Amino acid sequence: MRTRKNIIAGIDLGGTSMQVLIVDNRNNILAEAKALTRRTRKPEPVVSDVVTAVEEALSGAGLRRSDLTAASIGAPGPVDPDRGIVHHAPNLGWIEFPLGPTLAKRLRVPVFLENDVNAGTVGEHTLGAGAGATNLIGIFVGTGIGGGIIVNGKLYEGSHGGAGEIGHMIMVVDGPLCGCGHRGCIEAVASRTAMERDVRAAIKGGQKSIVLELMKRRNKTRMTSSVINAALKRKDPVMQDVMQRVQRYLGVLVANVVNLLDPECVVIGGGLAGRLGEQYVGPIRENAHEHFFREQDIKRVRVVAGKLGDNAGAFGAVVLARRRLRSL
Amino acid sequence: MRTRKNIIAGIDLGGTSMQVLIVDNRNNILAEAKALTRRTRKPEPVVSDVVTAVEEALSGAGLRRSDLTAASIGAPGPVDPDRGIVHHAPNLGWIEFPLGPTLAKRLRVPVFLENDVNAGTVGEHTLGAGAGATNLIGIFVGTGIGGGIIVNGKLYEGSHGGAGEIGHMIMVVDGPLCGCGHRGCIEAVASRTAMERDVRAAIKGGQKSIVLELMKRRNKTRMTSSVINAALKRKDPVMQDVMQRVQRYLGVLVANVVNLLDPECVVIGGGLAGRLGEQYVGPIRENAHEHFFREQDIKRVRVVAGKLGDNAGAFGAVVLARRRLRSL
Repeated sequence: MRTRKNIIAGIDLGGTSMQVLIVDNRNNILAEAKALTRRTRKPEPVVSDVVTAVEEALSGAGLRRSDLTAASIGAPGPVDPDRGIVHHAPNLGWIEFPLGPTLAKRLRVPVFLENDVNAGTVGEHTLGAGAGATNLIGIFVGTGIGGGIIVNGKLYEGSHGGAGEIGHMIMVVDGPLCGCGHRGCIEAVASRTAMERDVRAAIKGGQKSIVLELMKRRNKTRMTSSVINAALKRKDPVMQDVMQRVQRYLGVLVANVVNLLDPECVVIGGGLAGRLGEQYVGPIRENAHEHFFREQDIKRVRVVAGKLGDNAGAFGAVVLARRRLRSL
Repeated sequence: MRTRKNIIAGIDLGGTSMQVLIVDNRNNILAEAKALTRRTRKPEPVVSDVVTAVEEALSGAGLRRSDLTAASIGAPGPVDPDRGIVHHAPNLGWIEFPLGPTLAKRLRVPVFLENDVNAGTVGEHTLGAGAGATNLIGIFVGTGIGGGIIVNGKLYEGSHGGAGEIGHMIMVVDGPLCGCGHRGCIEAVASRTAMERDVRAAIKGGQKSIVLELMKRRNKTRMTSSVINAALKRKDPVMQDVMQRVQRYLGVLVANVVNLLDPECVVIGGGLAGRLGEQYVGPIRENAHEHFFREQDIKRVRVVAGKLGDNAGAFGAVVLARRRLRSL
């Protein structure tokens, strides 16, 4: 019989999928579950799917709902951790939704809420690529770009809970339009969405590329990490070009935050880093080194791919929940 | 007779001048002294001038050297506060100079050392424009651009004492060459040095301007803040143009650090902010507002000119010394 002490469900709720982990008090993952996020603007069906996924994971671990001490969920966009409210999640279509209280009613345990990227950063800092760092920056690149900051070993949330919006630091003044309405944000220049825009534009401009064919073959409407990976393996010149430019900009971004915050470690997480690993992070690191203000930082600041992959957010949510339970 | 308890000399050592304050334990400024920094690559004569300035200020306050509890000095460039070493101060021509111990031997009191911009930020945070903020960014624009970061009410120095190099965040990829050897740093785009380069280039390119005449009349070889002020008052079109572009870039810089760090306050200090005040900071603020990711930040993040002027660094050095004396 398993010990039932301090079992926490960690949930990473994304715009396309959700990830659930059942974690014991020694940070062992007892079971996991994955589900697609329903395409609806109503939050309730999505909450029901979260509950189902948690139950599925629990039963996979040979546990029941009553064995759960708490749940902790990372959600996209700005959130209010104290009141459990998701302020604004464009990917989910939610505005001011009380996700924490709603889920707590359904699961009948305390539910903690955090921004998904903050949770991912805490995950990588606790058990992943950034373990042991006092000051650390997490950069998660996917359809968007998010960031998390660890200062003096703790998640830094800023004066209004909004710190870490690294994706909306402006990299190219008057650059391409970003989803946030501004121009030239690093997200509008180097996210997977930006890459897809640039690849499609190059193809429209007459350049030869196998990317659209690869997407069709895989039955994908979007240029996913696996499509990017396949195109690079086949040395698609358009993809190589776009990737090179993206790595250059991400290198400058890494240098900018290192020059400003002088951390020990920068973790690059998200789908592309997970899929491509060093092939993705290596050139980003080289470009960052070229732009470090302090030359010694080349030796002493680690720029590395995340280790926890898709589990970073759910795992970090568990760690944050445990810290909050302790301080209750 | 004055109380002699806890009298500290605060010193701000710059490449062109030094500022000394004698401060009592209630943060009253009892006296001040100012001197030019000698143009020599040898540190010892400069240290002697610092000692002379401290003595002059002490006597101005009716005090003797034996009344001094400690001295605290802000120096340009990266420093090691624990060992009192200035690692590298290009403006002074110093490399690995033990300023703290050398000055301590001469003054016969403990001497604390800090980076000048960090000291200025602490000054503005303690008694200046940023008083009361939990998280704050200081941006000091002069011949270069420096920054300081307050996190949770305390100076954040980073993992290797180098945090705050805001001037070497890259603003224009492949932009103009910076003194640090990289391209496109905000310092190479928006410092007073960068402004002078751009004004001279415009004049060489045939544009009409009274700037060179104003410099000659004031017997200045450099485009000082007072020259800039005079040119703007006379509506010099070249200066207006250059200033507008600089304020735009500085606005984006402010937005970038606000988006990343979510502070309550950004203080813009240094000579130009001191001389021009709101005329300089107003448009920077407007440009920052245009690039804030969180619209609420327009209301809740103050972007203001420094209040302490030339005293910020020396005053901040005193505050830091007092904190360190307490923790001894």
